[in-house]
Amino acid sequence: MTTISIGKYLIHRLKEVGVETIFGVPGDYNMPLLDQIEDDKDVFWGNNANELNASYAADGYARINGVGALVTTFGVGELSAMAGIAGSYSEMVPVIHIVGMPNTKSQATGAVLHHTLGNGDYHVFQKMFAEITVANALLKQENAAEQIDRVLQHCIANVRPGYIGIPIDLINAEITVKASPIPSLSLDIPKNPEKTHRAALEDIIAKVEEAKKPIILVDACALRRNMIKDVQKLIEVSGFPTFTTPMGKGGVDEDQPAYRGCYAGDVSYDEVKQEVHDSDLILAIGCLKADFNTGGFTYHLDSDKVIEFHSFNVSVHYATYEKVSMNQLIPDLIKHFPKKRSIDFGPRPCGPQADSNSEVIDHTYFWTNIPRFLEPRSIIVAETGTSMFGAINMKAPKDAIFITQFLWGSIGYSVGSAMGAAMAGRTQDRRVYLFVGDGSFQLTAQEVSVMLHQGLTPVIIILNNDGYTIEKLIHGPDRKYNNFQMWQYSKTLEYFGCNLEHNLKESFQAKVGAQAKVTTRKELEKVLEQTRAEKNKIHILEVCMPQLDAPRELLLQVKTSENR
Amino acid sequence: MTTISIGKYLIHRLKEVGVETIFGVPGDYNMPLLDQIEDDKDVFWGNNANELNASYAADGYARINGVGALVTTFGVGELSAMAGIAGSYSEMVPVIHIVGMPNTKSQATGAVLHHTLGNGDYHVFQKMFAEITVANALLKQENAAEQIDRVLQHCIANVRPGYIGIPIDLINAEITVKASPIPSLSLDIPKNPEKTHRAALEDIIAKVEEAKKPIILVDACALRRNMIKDVQKLIEVSGFPTFTTPMGKGGVDEDQPAYRGCYAGDVSYDEVKQEVHDSDLILAIGCLKADFNTGGFTYHLDSDKVIEFHSFNVSVHYATYEKVSMNQLIPDLIKHFPKKRSIDFGPRPCGPQADSNSEVIDHTYFWTNIPRFLEPRSIIVAETGTSMFGAINMKAPKDAIFITQFLWGSIGYSVGSAMGAAMAGRTQDRRVYLFVGDGSFQLTAQEVSVMLHQGLTPVIIILNNDGYTIEKLIHGPDRKYNNFQMWQYSKTLEYFGCNLEHNLKESFQAKVGAQAKVTTRKELEKVLEQTRAEKNKIHILEVCMPQLDAPRELLLQVKTSENR
Repeated sequence: MTTISIGKYLIHRLKEVGVETIFGVPGDYNMPLLDQIEDDKDVFWGNNANELNASYAADGYARINGVGALVTTFGVGELSAMAGIAGSYSEMVPVIHIVGMPNTKSQATGAVLHHTLGNGDYHVFQKMFAEITVANALLKQENAAEQIDRVLQHCIANVRPGYIGIPIDLINAEITVKASPIPSLSLDIPKNPEKTHRAALEDIIAKVEEAKKPIILVDACALRRNMIKDVQKLIEVSGFPTFTTPMGKGGVDEDQPAYRGCYAGDVSYDEVKQEVHDSDLILAIGCLKADFNTGGFTYHLDSDKVIEFHSFNVSVHYATYEKVSMNQLIPDLIKHFPKKRSIDFGPRPCGPQADSNSEVIDHTYFWTNIPRFLEPRSIIVAETGTSMFGAINMKAPKDAIFITQFLWGSIGYSVGSAMGAAMAGRTQDRRVYLFVGDGSFQLTAQEVSVMLHQGLTPVIIILNNDGYTIEKLIHGPDRKYNNFQMWQYSKTLEYFGCNLEHNLKESFQAKVGAQAKVTTRKELEKVLEQTRAEKNKIHILEVCMPQLDAPRELLLQVKTSENR
Repeated sequence: MTTISIGKYLIHRLKEVGVETIFGVPGDYNMPLLDQIEDDKDVFWGNNANELNASYAADGYARINGVGALVTTFGVGELSAMAGIAGSYSEMVPVIHIVGMPNTKSQATGAVLHHTLGNGDYHVFQKMFAEITVANALLKQENAAEQIDRVLQHCIANVRPGYIGIPIDLINAEITVKASPIPSLSLDIPKNPEKTHRAALEDIIAKVEEAKKPIILVDACALRRNMIKDVQKLIEVSGFPTFTTPMGKGGVDEDQPAYRGCYAGDVSYDEVKQEVHDSDLILAIGCLKADFNTGGFTYHLDSDKVIEFHSFNVSVHYATYEKVSMNQLIPDLIKHFPKKRSIDFGPRPCGPQADSNSEVIDHTYFWTNIPRFLEPRSIIVAETGTSMFGAINMKAPKDAIFITQFLWGSIGYSVGSAMGAAMAGRTQDRRVYLFVGDGSFQLTAQEVSVMLHQGLTPVIIILNNDGYTIEKLIHGPDRKYNNFQMWQYSKTLEYFGCNLEHNLKESFQAKVGAQAKVTTRKELEKVLEQTRAEKNKIHILEVCMPQLDAPRELLLQVKTSENR
């Protein structure tokens, strides 16, 4: 028998599934839980600037660490995090959203408390969250442990968010678990049905043997389902040319000759598109056919050439093998793979090169040159807009992780996400490089202050092209609504108090490196050298770019969308 | 017959109900509507820094102008505004939330577009908003005009938010209205049932005639239902001592002798509480009995002493007259009111006075002295926390409007709301004074940049007490989670580019007055003199206060909540 408070049980389970930082914002309905977090030496409190940022941070953290969590307060706090949680649902990221609620008695009497709609309805927000979570619970004393376990299990199995509402009086209420120590949380996934699994395997092997020009295409769910190592083995045993999609970026070691580039229909480099379209068998791993991930639905891959590996089924051309998970099938496929082919790949396709006589920092120059300055194991957070599209064809550093929102595409996401990713990266020797446009930065800029407060050391690169460039390219280049106030971006750290004595007394406060505004390539490269040399500092760079210049990938994407 | 595009019809109706500024953020699914807004010389585009701020701005605007509106983009944008819209629901403010959606064809085919959950569900967000709006519609070509009219009518009748989703292809699609010019929108409210109305009136007059110590208590809905002028007449014909609640603040001219103070149960001044409790008849106008509005439910007013005037019914002690709206009843009551009484009010109750030998800016000093520097017609926006409670007993300038969130209480609300209120105030000769704590300011600070961009001239007063003081008082004064990064608050305008040549070229850009950090009363008063002298400028003051000092009203409120 173990007697434990409900709050501590929840924290215990979060730690068990790998959560070391819990994000969020204090509120009067959640503070006893924050006490428990602060008193637990094995978890850290994220202390975000607002709830939206906290939800983005938990999402970024989960993309590095497997699972994320945030704590908000009832009503005002939880709804502020809604766009972030919906993003985690859309992009398939397991984030546990814990909401501190008014006490059981007030709920039962329908008291008109602050942070309510004033109508005594204490279930309305949970109901709204049910639309964007795979499991949700409002904890009760009698089954709190089971409910917590159920939400965590569903979230992890489905790689989607979950919601746990905990009335404030239950945080310190004690429950009894019928064992000591508390038994581990079962995270077993169902085993593939044996005969279906074998049939799929045989079918695939036959198709592979017949194929003349087979390739591998690595997409989003290969990353979400932790298949990177398996994918690498598959590349090695097959010898097949390998491509990623935009959302699969980071899933393949780009230093190996088999890696051929990023495929996104008409948005790809011409040679990449040619090679994919010339192929007669595509092993597509974890596909997610969203508009920005497919060059605006310009994939044009016939099903009779494609084998799709998914989390809960596998399709071989027109036949679907239900309940066969790629996580079990691919390791087996690797074991039984036909003889490795020796393919002469030729030079890797590459895009236009920058005019070397210019000092202008245009996108072509920027995205082809930036990789020189990044380290192995970097976390590259690229904001929706010019940064995300610019990153499609940038050369990934070894073992890098890319964080983008090609599907959800919420502007401002990257700044919060970078904070969370940096929190996870700190214990994994991974450094965050945040690429964000001036427009997007303005939505969530205050999270940089939290980075300072938490002693995080990302390199923040603000691409200042004076306006919402992605929107201008889509619609209204001369419209006033696509312009906004110009900030002194390079003074961000200063404004957020990096030099204030009050802050410097904090044990975690980050040391500050570059705070630069650059307009020429020479200046940019000099500062990037500094960021590389000063690893234990936070840096901010405002990079001035021509106003309507954009990555070729963004221009092509806009073109594919015009007719829709 | 009038032929008009759906977007223009919508804008036409919004203008008709008094909307001159439409708030929001551009997104690729709403831009054709923004074109129409920008091309219409009678509406202005709010151009907010993010969607949450836009929703707060629309709410603040509606509290001055009657109705507010904002435009967001599908999914990412609309969900980011959720906490603001829920706040408008809770606090009863009519805000029309217009969402630009993917085109009809993509919706029909369930395309996996960006900003979706990736599951082809295009109704999910509307469904979520249905929980926090009184009317919602997803426009179709065939009934767009009727749907727009219906949503507007419901929002205005119920003073709550509404939701209109408009697929991008329908914005410029034309519809035909069967008249020219377009007939006015009917905003008639149902007439009170004659006999019930008369019975209520007679009952009330009888009670008034019997009463020995009658009083008037003005609450939230008196403001929401535009009853300020009627309330004033009632005070004049009755001669009764009059009180407001915290949410009724601004509903009564505080210069008249009949005004006795702000009543909030145990949070009131002792003499105020005494006078209210000694009364034998309370004409309570538009009551909203939420915890922060009632001193934590310490009202203790027996029903047999209270007549409650509401929007859709009136209660005389234990009897309810259904469907009798105060908006029709009170004017009639005024007409038939018994003879005016002549009451000797005695000196108005007042609270503790500040130690005049000190230079420390404590809350007692601050809230008793600040009114000297405010103008008539000021809009006082007071953030949830120390500011809101401090404002309860501050002397209201003549014809001032107070904006607070005593019920919803979302921190950060005041900054966005102040932006919207300033936008409305500009055409009404009303100046905004924003009182916000350092903690709350950090959630939504970027909206100050929009104030600069739009040429708004509020006085922004940041009460810097180094941490979430309201939270510390409730729980965990020494907890790390109640602390955060100290910013250089007084440099806010500078950071947001007030001096940048690029911004100064904008025709609207605000001129900048004080940018001060003050620690003594002398310094504070000197800067306040400057803000009063320089009316056409934006000012920012960082006021340093002792860390755990708080208004007495907040300390009392915390005490009332301890036992719940």
